[in-house]
Amino acid sequence: MSTDGVSSGATRGRPRSDQVDQAILHAASALLVERGLDAMTIEEVAARAGVGKSSIYRRWPTKGTLALDAFLDSFLAQQPRVDTGALEDDLAEALTLWSAAVVGTPTGRALVGLIAESQLDEELARGWIERVMKPVRAQHRTMVERAIERGEIPVDSDVDVIMDLLYGAAYHRLLQGHLAITPAFIETVARMVAQGAKSGAAVAR
Amino acid sequence: MSTDGVSSGATRGRPRSDQVDQAILHAASALLVERGLDAMTIEEVAARAGVGKSSIYRRWPTKGTLALDAFLDSFLAQQPRVDTGALEDDLAEALTLWSAAVVGTPTGRALVGLIAESQLDEELARGWIERVMKPVRAQHRTMVERAIERGEIPVDSDVDVIMDLLYGAAYHRLLQGHLAITPAFIETVARMVAQGAKSGAAVAR
Repeated sequence: MSTDGVSSGATRGRPRSDQVDQAILHAASALLVERGLDAMTIEEVAARAGVGKSSIYRRWPTKGTLALDAFLDSFLAQQPRVDTGALEDDLAEALTLWSAAVVGTPTGRALVGLIAESQLDEELARGWIERVMKPVRAQHRTMVERAIERGEIPVDSDVDVIMDLLYGAAYHRLLQGHLAITPAFIETVARMVAQGAKSGAAVAR
Repeated sequence: MSTDGVSSGATRGRPRSDQVDQAILHAASALLVERGLDAMTIEEVAARAGVGKSSIYRRWPTKGTLALDAFLDSFLAQQPRVDTGALEDDLAEALTLWSAAVVGTPTGRALVGLIAESQLDEELARGWIERVMKPVRAQHRTMVERAIERGEIPVDSDVDVIMDLLYGAAYHRLLQGHLAITPAFIETVARMVAQGAKSGAAVAR
């Protein structure tokens, strides 16, 4: 009855496979927190999950793509939608939530590890954009779209540049470590981005 | 005559040591361009420079710190001071020079490799801040200080936040790869940051 013509034990394949996937993801999550992506090995994940390495490589071709899946649910759950009714407050609140999720946390260590690894692993880089950047940005851009609907900022404002300024400033400090991400920093960044957008500066010329 | 009490061949040590250092740095620069920091090994650098590995490890404890030195001169030389007489134009010009130096170039590959490696190598992370971020920022902040002197923006504007917005937005696209760094992007970022600063939004409350 298999639809793809593959018959090797396929009748029990799906439920067993889901359990194996969950065991692998849980093991990877724990190891990411304990020692970080660079020190994590597929061997360790396999040992802790009680599966063979081939079970891992069948679904995740590199440790980076496995770590991405292990990271994703926890990060996205910590980035809820905000809606205060004012652009500057929305931006400050969203950046405060992001900061709480990643500054000095296991999630943040996984985040910077994944960004570092994605410079070396093209498949991970593609997965990062498709599975992290795009869904997170789709969620964040509703803040700017509501500001447009309210008439706070011009209708043809470049939403991507607004997002790049807000999160780019914060990622800059997170990744390069030259200065701390403080509440005062978050407030000033949110005010700068909101005031710039209100002035019409985000409209492409 | 040695002032530090070390006498092992010290009389000819300094000039020979400088030549060895230069040979090591040239070999590391070439390998960084050819294959990137992740694939570069100290063994290869030693072989190409015609020195023993211990000659390298004596001065550079990790390959990251060696790569930092090999990267530094070329990057800093490509970030000259700009002074157009207007903040927005200065910011756009500086970001255009940065983009020309790093987008799709060997210098850019070395740059992202070093940022990635600095997430794993604390000594490199410290070196990155002290030897790249601080001197580059000291140079860039003169753009904002001149805008303050001209009365374009308030005297108590937060220069670091202004720099983090400008370069953070650009590093965000460079490192995360979700969108391209285009001339239109650079113009809009420069306009947003300049207009936000002119509105007084960069003054801490």
